[in-house]
Amino acid sequence: MASLPAAAAMSEAAVSEVKALTFDVFGTVVDWRATVVREGRELGRSKGIAIDWAAFADAWRDGYGPAMHRVRTGSLGWKTIDELHRMILDELLARFQVEALSEPEIDRFNRVWHRLDPWPDAVAGLTRLKRKFIVASLSNGNVALLVNMAKHAGLPWDAVLSSELAGRYKPDREVYRKAADLLGLEPRQVMMVAAHKGDLRAAASVGFKTGFVPRPQERPNRDIDLAFDDAFDLNAVDFLDLAEKLGA
Amino acid sequence: MASLPAAAAMSEAAVSEVKALTFDVFGTVVDWRATVVREGRELGRSKGIAIDWAAFADAWRDGYGPAMHRVRTGSLGWKTIDELHRMILDELLARFQVEALSEPEIDRFNRVWHRLDPWPDAVAGLTRLKRKFIVASLSNGNVALLVNMAKHAGLPWDAVLSSELAGRYKPDREVYRKAADLLGLEPRQVMMVAAHKGDLRAAASVGFKTGFVPRPQERPNRDIDLAFDDAFDLNAVDFLDLAEKLGA
Repeated sequence: MASLPAAAAMSEAAVSEVKALTFDVFGTVVDWRATVVREGRELGRSKGIAIDWAAFADAWRDGYGPAMHRVRTGSLGWKTIDELHRMILDELLARFQVEALSEPEIDRFNRVWHRLDPWPDAVAGLTRLKRKFIVASLSNGNVALLVNMAKHAGLPWDAVLSSELAGRYKPDREVYRKAADLLGLEPRQVMMVAAHKGDLRAAASVGFKTGFVPRPQERPNRDIDLAFDDAFDLNAVDFLDLAEKLGA
Repeated sequence: MASLPAAAAMSEAAVSEVKALTFDVFGTVVDWRATVVREGRELGRSKGIAIDWAAFADAWRDGYGPAMHRVRTGSLGWKTIDELHRMILDELLARFQVEALSEPEIDRFNRVWHRLDPWPDAVAGLTRLKRKFIVASLSNGNVALLVNMAKHAGLPWDAVLSSELAGRYKPDREVYRKAADLLGLEPRQVMMVAAHKGDLRAAASVGFKTGFVPRPQERPNRDIDLAFDDAFDLNAVDFLDLAEKLGA
């Protein structure tokens, strides 16, 4: 995928307005699938569990939208992502007929989401962007998960912001508004960066600028919309390209 | 002030339980008074304002407890510290008969609290403590103030936690409980670090461990209780001494 021509980049005036970048995390900053599959296989080898760990990882992630939906519609009270991940994990262990794990082992595996590895450009790109902008997470991951992940992966956040602080999940508009408010900024001074177009469209609807960074390796087995789109303020192939286009 | 003898340090078992340190900021991490006085004097020189800027800085800080009290008792709705600082500043500009400042100049001076300089040991001490523990602010300063200050001063927080996230001010107990909850930890796994004994006593009352780091230069003109006290889990002369005592 080639970098966009310079003509399609944001105007200097629009860039100069941006004070902070807020980042989606799962899939945009970290490669959740590769890490979950790898740790699953390691666990499988050590405990003699012979299942398709790639299918397990996909099913775990696929359970997350429906689980959030149950909270949104009120059939469940507020749950952190750690709690949602555990609910889905318990269902999957039953469905995949995994019976060899103790409670501490299940709890530890549930926290694999705290130990996700970053995409190869993520730390270098964030480090460069941090010189010019406030760089903050803005994830449905809870604060504890994001803090632990940042320490694991070396993510140099200036602020760990989370849907948890709004008591709502993305793409609910309140999450973006709360993030701008906590940073003391107007929405137009903040750029949401994500590999997922729905997240960017929701951020744009409350006035955020948008940066699209597709991650073709996030779900190589799915048909995901990876095409650059002029509806976003910037499109970039990775975080280093994003830094270049933002003059950082 | 000498370091405590090793015999008075925490047991290894107690230290091993601690996963995160939460820090008071104004006075404990940063030297608010020296910075406010220096910026006041610079402003005074450039605008021809001849007042006692040390007295002004002290009055500004002294206005902060009574202002929080008005919010606590319900005579004011929730206000960020930026907003409280501005209310007090407006009163002081009238009291000190300062009339030479435009609205942008007043706004900029109000944000001097975002630009406070750290104590000389603060960045090196936090950097060292961060290798072993989660290091987080836990200040009455609002998130935006703390994020801007961290970028100004190079404070390497893993998480910027603030009373703002609890909608209450320290020393209200909810602030400490909310911080532990956001970090996914039990209160006993968190050590509050502060130069102010009231802050530590409140944290201890909800189960936090406590580290006292007196800052004799914070208010050299006031009679502050700077004495080490065995009621706290640790006493340290500065953040490097704290790191040493915590094995970081």
